[in-house]
Amino acid sequence: MSFKVPEDITICLEEEMARKFLERIWGKQPTYACVIGNTETAKIPGLSAAGANPEATDFTPAADMELLFYGKCKCIDGVPVTPDGIPTPGIVTMSSIKLSGMPFFVVNGGLRVRPHVPYFELDGAPGDDIRTGRSVKDPEKVYDRAVLAGQNLAKISNYLVIAESIPGGTTTALGVLTALGYEAYGKVSSTLPANPHELKLKVVEEGLKASGMKREAFRKDPMAAIEAVGDPMMAAAAGLAVGAAETIPVLLAGGTQMAAVLAIIKGMDYSTLNNIAIGTTRWITKDGNSDIRSLVSQIGKVPVLSANLNFSLSRYDGLKIYETGLVKEGVGAGGSSIAAMAASEGKITAHTILDEIEKNYARLVSRR
Amino acid sequence: MSFKVPEDITICLEEEMARKFLERIWGKQPTYACVIGNTETAKIPGLSAAGANPEATDFTPAADMELLFYGKCKCIDGVPVTPDGIPTPGIVTMSSIKLSGMPFFVVNGGLRVRPHVPYFELDGAPGDDIRTGRSVKDPEKVYDRAVLAGQNLAKISNYLVIAESIPGGTTTALGVLTALGYEAYGKVSSTLPANPHELKLKVVEEGLKASGMKREAFRKDPMAAIEAVGDPMMAAAAGLAVGAAETIPVLLAGGTQMAAVLAIIKGMDYSTLNNIAIGTTRWITKDGNSDIRSLVSQIGKVPVLSANLNFSLSRYDGLKIYETGLVKEGVGAGGSSIAAMAASEGKITAHTILDEIEKNYARLVSRR
Repeated sequence: MSFKVPEDITICLEEEMARKFLERIWGKQPTYACVIGNTETAKIPGLSAAGANPEATDFTPAADMELLFYGKCKCIDGVPVTPDGIPTPGIVTMSSIKLSGMPFFVVNGGLRVRPHVPYFELDGAPGDDIRTGRSVKDPEKVYDRAVLAGQNLAKISNYLVIAESIPGGTTTALGVLTALGYEAYGKVSSTLPANPHELKLKVVEEGLKASGMKREAFRKDPMAAIEAVGDPMMAAAAGLAVGAAETIPVLLAGGTQMAAVLAIIKGMDYSTLNNIAIGTTRWITKDGNSDIRSLVSQIGKVPVLSANLNFSLSRYDGLKIYETGLVKEGVGAGGSSIAAMAASEGKITAHTILDEIEKNYARLVSRR
Repeated sequence: MSFKVPEDITICLEEEMARKFLERIWGKQPTYACVIGNTETAKIPGLSAAGANPEATDFTPAADMELLFYGKCKCIDGVPVTPDGIPTPGIVTMSSIKLSGMPFFVVNGGLRVRPHVPYFELDGAPGDDIRTGRSVKDPEKVYDRAVLAGQNLAKISNYLVIAESIPGGTTTALGVLTALGYEAYGKVSSTLPANPHELKLKVVEEGLKASGMKREAFRKDPMAAIEAVGDPMMAAAAGLAVGAAETIPVLLAGGTQMAAVLAIIKGMDYSTLNNIAIGTTRWITKDGNSDIRSLVSQIGKVPVLSANLNFSLSRYDGLKIYETGLVKEGVGAGGSSIAAMAASEGKITAHTILDEIEKNYARLVSRR
């Protein structure tokens, strides 16, 4: 193997497969698609920090997409922030897209607030609180349509980067991973530095019980798992991945939520797994309060790559604070950074991405 | 010029430019996008045959798209037919897509009935009867979003084929062409062999009057023309074309409706015209009751190509009857055939397309 992994990308799982995956996408233009959705689960107090307050989380996915298209949000003032005012990781993705010029698409998995941008409609509905045990309507319809979209995108793409923006998504990830029989407690990530693992588990257990289904019944039925305790991003992302990975490589761009998507893919079409990798941030892979390696290795032999974004030397406090474990990932921040580095054959680095992020941050946020 | 135009494609306007356009797309995989919409104008008695009856025209665009994805319709039984039972030109497009394997996308310009397929949503509304003089809501919003979608598709496409399916569309084409100051009376096409030119003109005149705008005010304002007497396909198709034609060739796949789209493109972004051609069927270019050459040459120097589809020797009466001037064009039948021929460097011919059409026809229609 003469291919050298650039120092701004770390291989975290499946060294050899990861190296081969990187080699395949090296110098190639990616196609980026972000699947967005809303779930009422995000509004359970204490669960999500992907919005200034629980009600604001409804706007976060739409606002993130507007950021990619217009360099500013339309459905809200400013940009999505945590309750402490920390800005969305969408700024990272926006910067990677700007630097690399990669084409980007939006896919509506099921939204309460629609973005002012063009997007793929799959006829999904926004998700309910998973404590009802009936959180997503007809995920199979959405999955089937996403497969078709993925197949067509694959015909004109070198490889597909699939990202997500859905507040509350790590709780639904715990839900689906648990339903599918994986050991996931304590292993999903959080936008908060103090990961509310016990609250998440309580919510998931309540949903699984309310679903009225036996635990074993979920094991081989990912759509039933989504329907009971999942979210509207999942079926869309899994379908896109399966449709595309029949013919091209797919980089699932996200943290532990993408482990849940991977588990769904495995249950729906095992054969596509060997064309898939996960790309995330260093903030996820070095996080002591979650464990993406354990989750992914329970599912299958799938490489995990991380972009070594490091904001500790940033001029801006609002970015520096990412190093304390706030936010960590979202909108495919890590995967889109890896894709930008790979497309440019390493000319785009973690450093140039941070420069671009700071420029955008200064324009968008730091006006106080 | 050593490039030889294949005998199944006829150049009908701008010989030299057409030849160069063909040469540029020769051997290249196209990206096909069909813009669909509904207008109440289609339900004016005597205007459109793009449905078994006026109410059925609501379902035609959605059903056409389902045909492309599934090889059969979902929102209706059978396939869209004229009142006489003649099947949709979507069968032609479906056959060209099947033979060539080209990727295809659906764009919702403004629908009353949504297809059971993935599609780009641009937040357009279905159109009203143009006699109201207020036929389309906020075409500029739809145009702007379509430009963004076109720009992103262009990054991963060699060239873009833009088709349409919207019953009543030749009347709205007359409306917009007239509003923009072109001599269009008697020149737009029809799904009917006896083209109801006078009825169309009466409807358009009524709409222009009801709009309350002075004739001159429309001349330089394509969006105002669409808003008054256009349809929801137009802004979406024009925006897609402008967004894509900034960087790649665009083939407008349709008859005289695409002349109206061309006029809109000219008014919005003149500079993209030199990257655009029209591709249609022989049934349009040899039609004695319409005049696409006159329409296009009034607008600018834009090549018109036609696919020499000839059903006179078909085994099926329902296809043979296309030779009498029924249907003629739609769903990009002509342009998608040209694209299939060009992609295959002439290996796909009018003959092989007819063979495929007959196979699909036999399966779908000829069960009586």
